[in-house]
Amino acid sequence: MSLIVQKYGGTSMADPRCIAMVAERVKRAKEEGHDVVVVVSAMAGETDRLLSLAHALNDNPKPREYSALLATGEQASTALLCIALDKLDYQARSFTGLQAGIQTTSEHKKARIADINTKALRASLAKGEIPVVAGFQGVNTEGDVTTLGRGGSDTTAVAVAAALQADECQIYTDVDGVYTADPRIEPQARRLAKVTFEEMLELASLGAKVLQTRSVELIGKYRVPLRVLSTFSEGGGTLVTFEDDTMEQPLVSGIAYNRNEAKLTVLGVPDVPGVASQIISSVSTAGIDVDIIVQNIAYNGVTDFSFTVHRDDYQRALAILGETAERLGARVVLGDNKIGKLSLVGVGMRSHAGVANTMFATLGEEGVNIQMITTSEIKISVVIEEREIDRSVRALHKAFKLDCEPVVEMDPYREKERTL
Amino acid sequence: MSLIVQKYGGTSMADPRCIAMVAERVKRAKEEGHDVVVVVSAMAGETDRLLSLAHALNDNPKPREYSALLATGEQASTALLCIALDKLDYQARSFTGLQAGIQTTSEHKKARIADINTKALRASLAKGEIPVVAGFQGVNTEGDVTTLGRGGSDTTAVAVAAALQADECQIYTDVDGVYTADPRIEPQARRLAKVTFEEMLELASLGAKVLQTRSVELIGKYRVPLRVLSTFSEGGGTLVTFEDDTMEQPLVSGIAYNRNEAKLTVLGVPDVPGVASQIISSVSTAGIDVDIIVQNIAYNGVTDFSFTVHRDDYQRALAILGETAERLGARVVLGDNKIGKLSLVGVGMRSHAGVANTMFATLGEEGVNIQMITTSEIKISVVIEEREIDRSVRALHKAFKLDCEPVVEMDPYREKERTL
Repeated sequence: MSLIVQKYGGTSMADPRCIAMVAERVKRAKEEGHDVVVVVSAMAGETDRLLSLAHALNDNPKPREYSALLATGEQASTALLCIALDKLDYQARSFTGLQAGIQTTSEHKKARIADINTKALRASLAKGEIPVVAGFQGVNTEGDVTTLGRGGSDTTAVAVAAALQADECQIYTDVDGVYTADPRIEPQARRLAKVTFEEMLELASLGAKVLQTRSVELIGKYRVPLRVLSTFSEGGGTLVTFEDDTMEQPLVSGIAYNRNEAKLTVLGVPDVPGVASQIISSVSTAGIDVDIIVQNIAYNGVTDFSFTVHRDDYQRALAILGETAERLGARVVLGDNKIGKLSLVGVGMRSHAGVANTMFATLGEEGVNIQMITTSEIKISVVIEEREIDRSVRALHKAFKLDCEPVVEMDPYREKERTL
Repeated sequence: MSLIVQKYGGTSMADPRCIAMVAERVKRAKEEGHDVVVVVSAMAGETDRLLSLAHALNDNPKPREYSALLATGEQASTALLCIALDKLDYQARSFTGLQAGIQTTSEHKKARIADINTKALRASLAKGEIPVVAGFQGVNTEGDVTTLGRGGSDTTAVAVAAALQADECQIYTDVDGVYTADPRIEPQARRLAKVTFEEMLELASLGAKVLQTRSVELIGKYRVPLRVLSTFSEGGGTLVTFEDDTMEQPLVSGIAYNRNEAKLTVLGVPDVPGVASQIISSVSTAGIDVDIIVQNIAYNGVTDFSFTVHRDDYQRALAILGETAERLGARVVLGDNKIGKLSLVGVGMRSHAGVANTMFATLGEEGVNIQMITTSEIKISVVIEEREIDRSVRALHKAFKLDCEPVVEMDPYREKERTL
């Protein structure tokens, strides 16, 4: 008998019909002989409903009350799922973050889980019950309800799985796993039976919205075996693994993209120490997050400095950068908010330098101009025109043969892992 | 400086506009120099929304999860009001039942408040904050969230006021006080500046839905000075008093009615000990609440036995009574679900037997036939045809001159009490 932590997101809990389906899924795992702990999000739309009420009253709700308000959404979900499980004659018990022993740091809207006292959850499991835990929330040392930031239910699930040393953490969502590319853009996109932890981390931070980045970090920290599955269809989903046998890895696992960025460039920056810091700090002290940063080598004592920000922050960043550039004696500031970021992710890339070459050649053949390039050990990202994203995804998907199952995936050892 | 507990019901918290009005009311009490603790209900419609979700999943939700679900409605209200108060630059802090130290008995849907640990509330007041407490809920010794039964926010407010020894408990609702009769029926109905505790208890149990019966019982137990006020209009509301100086009381304070009852009669019941018990127990063991019971003296060894139940229970009660009557050898069972109950309430009645006489004479002149009569020290109730309720209310209102302010109300001592 295994212990499984299952997490169901907002779309899985959208209405009574969906909640009844979730109850059936939980029941199936119980019938297979597993112990199950469930973590749930608020019903789809509920968090936005509560937020709009709050914002109708106050543009800037206090974090403590913001958390107290939003936490009710997940609490209602836990009770509703227990009511549905009871209908199927399964004993279930709802847990608020507090009742589940989820202790967090004290900040309210972006609290981090500090510790989980699993006593109450273990006692419930020992009675044969199905504990149903409110995701996204905890309690700080002052006894205030805290929230983990949006999407934090994934983090709750991984943390609960780690604390209970669960055999598997299953993230149920409205997609049935991690794909080689967005299936809405590339119909040939194929579900990956497994991805490595590092790949998942890159994919999450690149905006492939299957898992929240912080939950992926926790997976790595506690080595929680995690699987992404669909609530609404069958299939083994995608397993996140921790093996590092590069030889067996496909070169490229998937293609991610992001349309939410804007690019800013300062031309003719003096090539002296501290300049990069001055540019970035002027933007980040304004609370603007910077994603890609590119600086090329200097020529004639000046250099060009580029970075990307979220598109919503574009106008503010442009204004700030104008002042900074003037102070630095830079020549001119350029900006473009019609860009997109495209990334190839794959652990196999580490030992195959040819990936970048194939990527650039493919984009060149498509007539797509590359504006910026950054690389990490297992990722290559390029910034291109936004309108060229779809075409580029399809071309790269074909170039790297992502529609075909790689040979290594046929290994029977891997097949075994795919089913619990 | 006084300490005031203010309670706002669901219609007062119906939407952001209403919540902002509530915040303004709280602000006004603070500006007058009072310490204020606020107790809130769920937004109007929210409890029903949650219930319909639960019932879509399960006809019979478990009480523990039922409570956990419904309690979220009040919790959201507390946070929203704090967010609105913050907008007005007042420091407020939301409290769940647990955080407010409201310890209840263990039953989930009809828990009773066992104790309130006021430490956290007092600490918040000491910091100059406005504590905003979730009504209708508490926590039992197992740490489960419990609910007090619908309308229980009134009970929370009175209990919090008692525990904090507040100077006044103010119940804000959508009517501006207790009236001599339902103003929708009798346009001349007059708001009472004060009613005695006993009158309020009769009025609450008669279905004048201003205060929940159990909260009125608590008022009496702890002698909490309580005032009923409107959120949406100005005025001193109605003060519930504990004085018992009958000489100064008007004969009749108000007229209450109820259209939700049905009448059942067993004719020809053998006049032997234990018969009444057998009839009533057969109905009450089926979970049906009985209101009025009337049995007249026996004649020729048999008697007639009548009682009223809620109209929703009429068909079930009729079926049960048929069996019971057969077992008892009673002659026949009659029923009528088109009846109404009309009651005169007034502490002054105690010493003025003429009230009943005037009541019966007035109804007789109107051609209204009285089917049943019951009396208590401060109340006379009659059962009449439902369609004659409105006419009877108006006739009695006139007969007892309820549209005129009684002379005793002009006493300056009373005026003083009316303003805090």
